[in-house]
Amino acid sequence: MALSKNEIKFVQSLRLKKFRQKYDNFTAEGEKIAEEVLRQHRFQVERVYAVSEWLEKAALLTDRSDPSPALHEVSEAELGKISSLSTPNRVLLVLRSPQPAPVHALEPDEPALYLDDLQDPGNLGAVLRIADWFGIPTVFCSPDSVDVFNPKVVQASMGAFLRVQSAEIALEELIAVNPGTPVIGAVLDGENVFETVLPQNGIMIIGNESKGISAAARQQLTHRIAIPRHEDGGAESLNAAVATGILAAWWRRGG
Amino acid sequence: MALSKNEIKFVQSLRLKKFRQKYDNFTAEGEKIAEEVLRQHRFQVERVYAVSEWLEKAALLTDRSDPSPALHEVSEAELGKISSLSTPNRVLLVLRSPQPAPVHALEPDEPALYLDDLQDPGNLGAVLRIADWFGIPTVFCSPDSVDVFNPKVVQASMGAFLRVQSAEIALEELIAVNPGTPVIGAVLDGENVFETVLPQNGIMIIGNESKGISAAARQQLTHRIAIPRHEDGGAESLNAAVATGILAAWWRRGG
Repeated sequence: MALSKNEIKFVQSLRLKKFRQKYDNFTAEGEKIAEEVLRQHRFQVERVYAVSEWLEKAALLTDRSDPSPALHEVSEAELGKISSLSTPNRVLLVLRSPQPAPVHALEPDEPALYLDDLQDPGNLGAVLRIADWFGIPTVFCSPDSVDVFNPKVVQASMGAFLRVQSAEIALEELIAVNPGTPVIGAVLDGENVFETVLPQNGIMIIGNESKGISAAARQQLTHRIAIPRHEDGGAESLNAAVATGILAAWWRRGG
Repeated sequence: MALSKNEIKFVQSLRLKKFRQKYDNFTAEGEKIAEEVLRQHRFQVERVYAVSEWLEKAALLTDRSDPSPALHEVSEAELGKISSLSTPNRVLLVLRSPQPAPVHALEPDEPALYLDDLQDPGNLGAVLRIADWFGIPTVFCSPDSVDVFNPKVVQASMGAFLRVQSAEIALEELIAVNPGTPVIGAVLDGENVFETVLPQNGIMIIGNESKGISAAARQQLTHRIAIPRHEDGGAESLNAAVATGILAAWWRRGG
């Protein structure tokens, strides 16, 4: 059965945050991610658009789901119309957005990341993988950051969005419910991270790709660190996700 | 003066490796990168496509270049037709490709990166920034890797392509001219990198995004390392550029 114009329009609309919020839906694509979503049952699957053999698999995997998803058999060509991927695809899921993680006090030994206006979806996807790899349960986002359910973020996260929680919150609010928690961030004149003793808990701030950590957030830092540039080095900066990986790897190396 | 169809077709063709090799040209875009290219004089600028005020700047900066570039005044709309950027742009340069770095024996204390079939242009751009930040002069690429002068790589490298040398070469050949040099790479059962003493020289191998380091390259490793996953972590892997950053930061932290 061919896709109706309205269906195409609806799924395409979910590329924009505005419509993801309006409908409380987002998409996940690709065979590997789709299989993980369907097996894991963490997110409610509302619709499955897939080629026939994938549809059978989805039917088996969601057979006890309540409510069960609407299954739509489509050709690869039709899927191309609703897909955000640049490569051919065989399955696209429309999922119900989870309730945001409530504003909560961190556990005494809990680490968290806070994105201070991160903009690039590929970077956020890579940051979710970092959080997932280094056992950081929650990634908080400033209201102006790219959001976690952007289809490019979902894709770049390689399934990490299924395990890492996220919530949009202003930094002052997060700190207000976590008084006295360490706030760690990289600044130009910070201390060499490899020579710094960091607390195992606290909030690590990730700055914007071109501006770094905002002036307001810098004032909140209790631990000002830096990734030392080699004396032969020329670059002005590192990619934001790369810098996050270096800091998180050192912070969480003991666990 | 409007762009001719042939000019549009020529510049667009440089998005493909085949035509970059055929014409020995590549493009660099955006005001920040263009300014750095023009001031630095490392690459020969053959053509400048820019809005009028930018053209004046380019004329000043290339005033003593020999041969001087052809200057083309275009509107932002026309530039949009030849640009690879997704955002509005004011200047695009057509550069002469540099001669590849000759196959050379590394200096006794020289570090290098080797890309074993890296595919994503954004990752290679981030890897060039890592090399530039940590003072690694050369990034060697396997023949199947994405190439350094892909416009998306140039863009993501944020100017690092101006400082880091690159050359395409098979790994066996690189090792043949560097007998006995350490060959370092991350593998699943490698030793915790933070507990490993690494030599300051040698070749660090970066694997493919989904397959990691190839079986052939794994056999060449003299130092098998790993980035430890936290005991609470769930991810299967890290992004390739993020992993490279973590390993390079630890390798080159002393300089």
